[in-house]
Amino acid sequence: MTGPYGILSPVWAGTPTARLMSEESILRAMLRVEAAWAQALADAGEAQAESAAAIAAISQDPERAGINVEDIASQSPGGGNPVIPMLGAVRGALAATGDSDAALHRGATSQDILDTALMLLCREAAAVLLTDARRAGAALSRLSQDHRGTLCVARSLTQHALPTSFGLRCAGWLDGLTHSIRRLELAAAALPLQWGGAVGTQAAQSDALGAQQTAALSTDLAARLGLCPMPRPWHTQRQVILDLGSALAGLLAALGKLAGDVLTLQRPEIAELREPAAPGRGGSSAMPQKQNPVLSTLIRSASLAGPAQLSTLYLAAAAAEDERPAGSWHAEWPSLIELTRLSGGAAARAAELFEGLVVRPDAMAANLRLSGDAVLSERVMARLGGSFPGGRPALQDLVRRSAVEAVPLRGLLQESLGTAITAAELDQLLDPHQYLGRAQEFIDAAVSDFHRHDGTQHDTTHPDTAHPDTTHPDTTRTAAPSEGPIDHA
Amino acid sequence: MTGPYGILSPVWAGTPTARLMSEESILRAMLRVEAAWAQALADAGEAQAESAAAIAAISQDPERAGINVEDIASQSPGGGNPVIPMLGAVRGALAATGDSDAALHRGATSQDILDTALMLLCREAAAVLLTDARRAGAALSRLSQDHRGTLCVARSLTQHALPTSFGLRCAGWLDGLTHSIRRLELAAAALPLQWGGAVGTQAAQSDALGAQQTAALSTDLAARLGLCPMPRPWHTQRQVILDLGSALAGLLAALGKLAGDVLTLQRPEIAELREPAAPGRGGSSAMPQKQNPVLSTLIRSASLAGPAQLSTLYLAAAAAEDERPAGSWHAEWPSLIELTRLSGGAAARAAELFEGLVVRPDAMAANLRLSGDAVLSERVMARLGGSFPGGRPALQDLVRRSAVEAVPLRGLLQESLGTAITAAELDQLLDPHQYLGRAQEFIDAAVSDFHRHDGTQHDTTHPDTAHPDTTHPDTTRTAAPSEGPIDHA
Amino acid sequence: MTGPYGILSPVWAGTPTARLMSEESILRAMLRVEAAWAQALADAGEAQAESAAAIAAISQDPERAGINVEDIASQSPGGGNPVIPMLGAVRGALAATGDSDAALHRGATSQDILDTALMLLCREAAAVLLTDARRAGAALSRLSQDHRGTLCVARSLTQHALPTSFGLRCAGWLDGLTHSIRRLELAAAALPLQWGGAVGTQAAQSDALGAQQTAALSTDLAARLGLCPMPRPWHTQRQVILDLGSALAGLLAALGKLAGDVLTLQRPEIAELREPAAPGRGGSSAMPQKQNPVLSTLIRSASLAGPAQLSTLYLAAAAAEDERPAGSWHAEWPSLIELTRLSGGAAARAAELFEGLVVRPDAMAANLRLSGDAVLSERVMARLGGSFPGGRPALQDLVRRSAVEAVPLRGLLQESLGTAITAAELDQLLDPHQYLGRAQEFIDAAVSDFHRHDGTQHDTTHPDTAHPDTTHPDTTRTAAPSEGPIDHA
Amino acid sequence: MTGPYGILSPVWAGTPTARLMSEESILRAMLRVEAAWAQALADAGEAQAESAAAIAAISQDPERAGINVEDIASQSPGGGNPVIPMLGAVRGALAATGDSDAALHRGATSQDILDTALMLLCREAAAVLLTDARRAGAALSRLSQDHRGTLCVARSLTQHALPTSFGLRCAGWLDGLTHSIRRLELAAAALPLQWGGAVGTQAAQSDALGAQQTAALSTDLAARLGLCPMPRPWHTQRQVILDLGSALAGLLAALGKLAGDVLTLQRPEIAELREPAAPGRGGSSAMPQKQNPVLSTLIRSASLAGPAQLSTLYLAAAAAEDERPAGSWHAEWPSLIELTRLSGGAAARAAELFEGLVVRPDAMAANLRLSGDAVLSERVMARLGGSFPGGRPALQDLVRRSAVEAVPLRGLLQESLGTAITAAELDQLLDPHQYLGRAQEFIDAAVSDFHRHDGTQHDTTHPDTAHPDTTHPDTTRTAAPSEGPIDHA
Repeated sequence: MTGPYGILSPVWAGTPTARLMSEESILRAMLRVEAAWAQALADAGEAQAESAAAIAAISQDPERAGINVEDIASQSPGGGNPVIPMLGAVRGALAATGDSDAALHRGATSQDILDTALMLLCREAAAVLLTDARRAGAALSRLSQDHRGTLCVARSLTQHALPTSFGLRCAGWLDGLTHSIRRLELAAAALPLQWGGAVGTQAAQSDALGAQQTAALSTDLAARLGLCPMPRPWHTQRQVILDLGSALAGLLAALGKLAGDVLTLQRPEIAELREPAAPGRGGSSAMPQKQNPVLSTLIRSASLAGPAQLSTLYLAAAAAEDERPAGSWHAEWPSLIELTRLSGGAAARAAELFEGLVVRPDAMAANLRLSGDAVLSERVMARLGGSFPGGRPALQDLVRRSAVEAVPLRGLLQESLGTAITAAELDQLLDPHQYLGRAQEFIDAAVSDFHRHDGTQHDTTHPDTAHPDTTHPDTTRTAAPSEGPIDHA
Repeated sequence: MTGPYGILSPVWAGTPTARLMSEESILRAMLRVEAAWAQALADAGEAQAESAAAIAAISQDPERAGINVEDIASQSPGGGNPVIPMLGAVRGALAATGDSDAALHRGATSQDILDTALMLLCREAAAVLLTDARRAGAALSRLSQDHRGTLCVARSLTQHALPTSFGLRCAGWLDGLTHSIRRLELAAAALPLQWGGAVGTQAAQSDALGAQQTAALSTDLAARLGLCPMPRPWHTQRQVILDLGSALAGLLAALGKLAGDVLTLQRPEIAELREPAAPGRGGSSAMPQKQNPVLSTLIRSASLAGPAQLSTLYLAAAAAEDERPAGSWHAEWPSLIELTRLSGGAAARAAELFEGLVVRPDAMAANLRLSGDAVLSERVMARLGGSFPGGRPALQDLVRRSAVEAVPLRGLLQESLGTAITAAELDQLLDPHQYLGRAQEFIDAAVSDFHRHDGTQHDTTHPDTAHPDTTHPDTTRTAAPSEGPIDHA
Repeated sequence: MTGPYGILSPVWAGTPTARLMSEESILRAMLRVEAAWAQALADAGEAQAESAAAIAAISQDPERAGINVEDIASQSPGGGNPVIPMLGAVRGALAATGDSDAALHRGATSQDILDTALMLLCREAAAVLLTDARRAGAALSRLSQDHRGTLCVARSLTQHALPTSFGLRCAGWLDGLTHSIRRLELAAAALPLQWGGAVGTQAAQSDALGAQQTAALSTDLAARLGLCPMPRPWHTQRQVILDLGSALAGLLAALGKLAGDVLTLQRPEIAELREPAAPGRGGSSAMPQKQNPVLSTLIRSASLAGPAQLSTLYLAAAAAEDERPAGSWHAEWPSLIELTRLSGGAAARAAELFEGLVVRPDAMAANLRLSGDAVLSERVMARLGGSFPGGRPALQDLVRRSAVEAVPLRGLLQESLGTAITAAELDQLLDPHQYLGRAQEFIDAAVSDFHRHDGTQHDTTHPDTAHPDTTHPDTTRTAAPSEGPIDHA
Repeated sequence: MTGPYGILSPVWAGTPTARLMSEESILRAMLRVEAAWAQALADAGEAQAESAAAIAAISQDPERAGINVEDIASQSPGGGNPVIPMLGAVRGALAATGDSDAALHRGATSQDILDTALMLLCREAAAVLLTDARRAGAALSRLSQDHRGTLCVARSLTQHALPTSFGLRCAGWLDGLTHSIRRLELAAAALPLQWGGAVGTQAAQSDALGAQQTAALSTDLAARLGLCPMPRPWHTQRQVILDLGSALAGLLAALGKLAGDVLTLQRPEIAELREPAAPGRGGSSAMPQKQNPVLSTLIRSASLAGPAQLSTLYLAAAAAEDERPAGSWHAEWPSLIELTRLSGGAAARAAELFEGLVVRPDAMAANLRLSGDAVLSERVMARLGGSFPGGRPALQDLVRRSAVEAVPLRGLLQESLGTAITAAELDQLLDPHQYLGRAQEFIDAAVSDFHRHDGTQHDTTHPDTAHPDTTHPDTTRTAAPSEGPIDHA
């Protein structure tokens, strides 16, 4: 592998996505596009097969042909992009072996090659990172189901609000992930060829091959590269880049939310979760007792950097002037590359994180108990507020007194209500298991949404926790993520 | 109308979108949500009809009930959002008329009301701004067809590159707009209800109404408000906000690209276009000869501000911690509101701009002539490079000499080639009309894509310019914008 | 007060900064600039005193003259800015009273008026928000000193690392605040007049008054408005806007860091801090036991929104083309206004937060105890690692075993070392009070830095905690914040 | 040199700044910090000289010691940063040669090493890029003076407004550059050491060396590395990063504005400027007549990417929680590195651009003539508006008629005024040379500001263009950039 290695980007250092986006890989992708075009021409009888074969050979082993990243990069400022020196180097290599350059870069422009090469790499990167995102989703799906009955406290503005189940928290995480996976799948599946010639008219090719052959060969080239055919050249209409970038940044946002929660829940005072341990991860030689939540830390770092990279893509799209832009196109590349690496790194870390996440139901129960019965105050207010002596204000005061003075609410209620309420009624009223609303139903639906989309089998029977009321009344017309804005189904 | 009036936001000052997003409109939208929920409960026999009616009356005329923006806003810091003081004011108004608050805000949380109110407003705003965007698109469609044969120069890195037609330039603009319209339509159509209660379990409602009735009433509420039902509460899973924000910012990017080009093309030295004149627009009393391109200027200002607002939405989504967030949710509101106003303003200005755009074919022709025959150099190189005395390098030198010394290329070619080329052949070779590639086909396809989507009739017959080769070989599998990543069709 | 009222911006709703930045205030500031210029001309005998007086009267009561925000804003799209319709309205008002407009807007351009008006408002807003920032700083200074000996745990990557004192944590917060206050003071003090005429040459004024009188009157005008004179017009050189915006965003970042920490430390499981209570703040009627950290929440929301607004200023500066820009100037206004409001709101909330912050030393001690003696593992490793049986690896294992098995480290050490260490030595080794490094010295220096700059008296004698080693060896050449990059001293 | 090579970052590919920020250079800088600390300890008699010498040897040739970027980067995810595996590799190398690690990393934390290393590199990079920025400034200073009398048209909202001189345009560009150079110099000069130990208390070092020795050695270390001593550790108080980042982004904004103008002025229809030609730069083999403005294009690309990178720094500062942050610190590195590379690249390209800029006064004159006498309309209105038959409205109509009908204004004026104005008076009135306001004075002052700061000699005598009225009445109290907010002088 070649660099960059990510010495200051631990979130993506060493990941397959980083390798796909390496400088060497980018160079090779540009050569692959040139080779595919030469071959398409040759197969159509429009160029010499020998020339095409020679180009293909160079694209398969550019180093043997004396073409390397450092040289190409160092010459790229001359024309403002690496395609120009790369073509010079290919021509030199062809000349050195006595091959013809007749099939090389025929009627194409630098932007055709570079845009198409980036689409190639992004499509491949999307496949890799979607695999990791689905792994994380599958793990969350399992956690949702395994912990559907694991009580914990739900927090609002950082404070204890009501009971919930850890399974529902996981299902919420899963919802965000499912939505963002779906958007990225669609964006990746739609990545098109760029093939417009110098100004987007395909004039040179049409002049040489005729319009119909030009059209046919464009379609053929897209197919060879596994890309969508383009409706029209999009040199300065960058909406597909925005779709792709938004999908990558959306995935980062979903993962960032998860990682932020894990960081909070792994704080020693809360201690409801623990990242999976692994040799060489998270330890400190100076403070051996310390186990750092490194995976979540890295995911969070990526999620903080993503939004700004995305904004550059939107800005570049707005600033893409004329038929081919002077600067905005160039500004797009590093942001798109980095957004892909960040997403790829975050997805890889998330898969590892959730597949091994250590859940501590005891700590969840203990934290829930911290707020005592008052965590049920919403229910108490609703059930007793109307009939309470002194009405709702008096009951509110009682709840506050319970919190401020750390006196159990149950006792205060019993005292105030006397025989108006039995111990059994109080037990029932203050039982957090009985105040989870539609949690079970939401868990099932989130899991189902993920797997319906995922296409994989999953066992939805949970004998221990099966419950009859998980009907889904909302299925006639539902919004994201089940059948969201970006869903074909 | 109430403010803000946009004294420093001329791009949206006075537009319908700005009115929809006014502070008063936001207050009313929150009241509409409360009223709809009260009515839904009452209609289901779950709350007093009189209470619901009283709430509805207040929502229809909050000022008569003594509820105004200034008071609510000034009290909003106490709870961190305006819903809390608004509820206090509604309770006060109900008490003042002796009405019950029994149907008010039952089992809802502030975020349910505010998120749903924003979805309502964004849906309404999207309808308004899509109408304007389609007007701009229709105008571009007409311009594309009217000017399919209007020659102009295509520019690359600001320099003259090749001939193109102004119709194709318009078709490119239209492509960007069509894509972004489609994305926004889908995002707007998918905006869901938010209805989760304090922590996203719907516990309070389920406790009171049962899970099934709760589910049914949620669906009913969404229908009453014209929103999609929600699959699950999304208090801290903000992907729908990202879809919406990305669509708004994508439209801004498409419009910004157009406006930037118009600004360039209206420069006095280029003068190919002119914004429509209107009383009171663009004039200067101090410099009466000056006509400022104000519409493009305002659109461009919005397109510069959009990307940053979008980045805040992505950041807020990544930072949405716990079951309900402490700060990230609050950071979302102003960015979403401003992004909507900017898009709405830009779309309104764009409709006006393109419906009245003054096109100057003479200036286009003159600018094309500036580069002389050398603007055909790509064709000259391709056609003559192989056979030229001295080969391609010699021919390149000739073209450069023509440019540097401002000597007509035609004469130099004639001189070099002598009898090897006839005057007629030179005429044909150097005729820009004959070097437009697939321009006509691309224009037709772009227009067709816009209208197919638009659903409106349009006359595609252009007797003068009809041409047989506008077949679309790429229709089996095409990418954005025709059948892009976000298309149901 | 007029709007916007901030119904969706609770961080600044109702603050003085928001009033300064209201639409009405902006309109009045533009009129103030016009009036000051008319008066400067009149005082120099270059314009009619009566005309200047009439303009002054309008500027003091624009509504009486029929000039209001709504009308001006609605007409602003015509010329792209509000100055043009405002001048029309002033001319109308002058005509209505039979006054002359001879002294109005002489040789000025719209941008002169608007830029100068914004500088005026930003200078006034800076004064307000610096006052609040200094209040927050003074409170932090007191907390630093009061809690210099209050032990708590220092956290790294969310995990317990070593002991520290709460006073040092406050001193760190203070450092960030001091630095950002200083930068904002300098930026605010340097805000200049903008006065260049149509294209930055002051041609019209020079033509009428001569270059020397023009120069003198520019200086006079700056003095009348309390602004710095400008070295040269800066219509498209926006570096002063960048200095100002960076300072505002830097303050927001400093406050955001503080608020984020308070949010964490107020989590019920940690409970080391509590926001000050106030009637109507942070309570929940549905869940009466809940006390939301609203001040921190609002500050955090502002800190999340600030970076994006700043990026728009930098982008606008880069895109400011020609002698006067078409769009980038317009994009600057809302971002600058919002950045000022966000900073002003955050500073006001921070002053209130820290002046009333409830500190809970018992909870700090309890949290520190959570990690047991292992929180001193760094010291244990350093002191005992060399001589421990089995060396550093064995000692690391011991510490890890203590953490994993929740066995007190002290016992394990005693067991392993036997008579090699006495109980008194272990007491000393594991006493967190004795492992605070230079905390006391850092606290004193941070407090001193804040007050040296603040200019106010403060009593640095702390008899109980005085210590002799608080010498400051670093004073010969120190970096930010004591004598940071932007300090004249 | 090692990578990254910048295959998709032509703005910085091959520049010295890019080399300074290479992955190899970052690794070496971290090793330099470790070596300097070991040596400081050894020199103070606090560590073995042999161990320090061995560490120094490794830092000078890490590859010989088997330490390389790829390995370190691939192991960095384990601890979340590269310092941890780097220390492991150093320990391994020391062990392999039988050397002691006793002097290694004593009492330091990863963040101390990495922050300090980045400060080292940024200081060195600032020196390089300031040299280039000053070269660009010196070239602009010369252009300002050489072209002080070269007339051209000033543009406002893209339209012709008034005459100006090209020298003044250059002086404006210079003003922006001078301001941003000054800010960067101050920020670079203030970059501090980071040295706080695990949680910012320097506990480990104080425990071993005593507080006074710890303080002295911190100061000594800063001096060895050429950095400012730190007042206090700043692990989570990132204001110096904000100062540095803002300065870099400010320079980028200044350069972006210049490049944008050059791009416009090099458009073939305007053609007032031309980038310097160089072998292999800007040419096109397919379209040999084309000369692309590559330098400006690359600078502009950097200026579009800068604002987003800066926003990440502000966000990271706001999100830096606890005593050492989990993710926000990590998000800072790539943005700071990229901002430095972008600035370095843009400065290098700008130096080359302005040192060789081709100015075409003829084209400037021709463009000015395009608007005819109407470009003096402001003057005409001011001089003749009062006395014109029909008053100002009639004169405005005349000017507009001149523009719309392309009839020379002079003739229309003569016709309307008859004998009321002489031909000589009209000559004088319509002479653009006589309507440049304070242009000459502004040029001199801008040049003087740049050089006063620059410290270099420059010859201000311009016999041909000397003029007596370049007095500077504004010098008593002036704002940025002459004595701006960030100036010590």
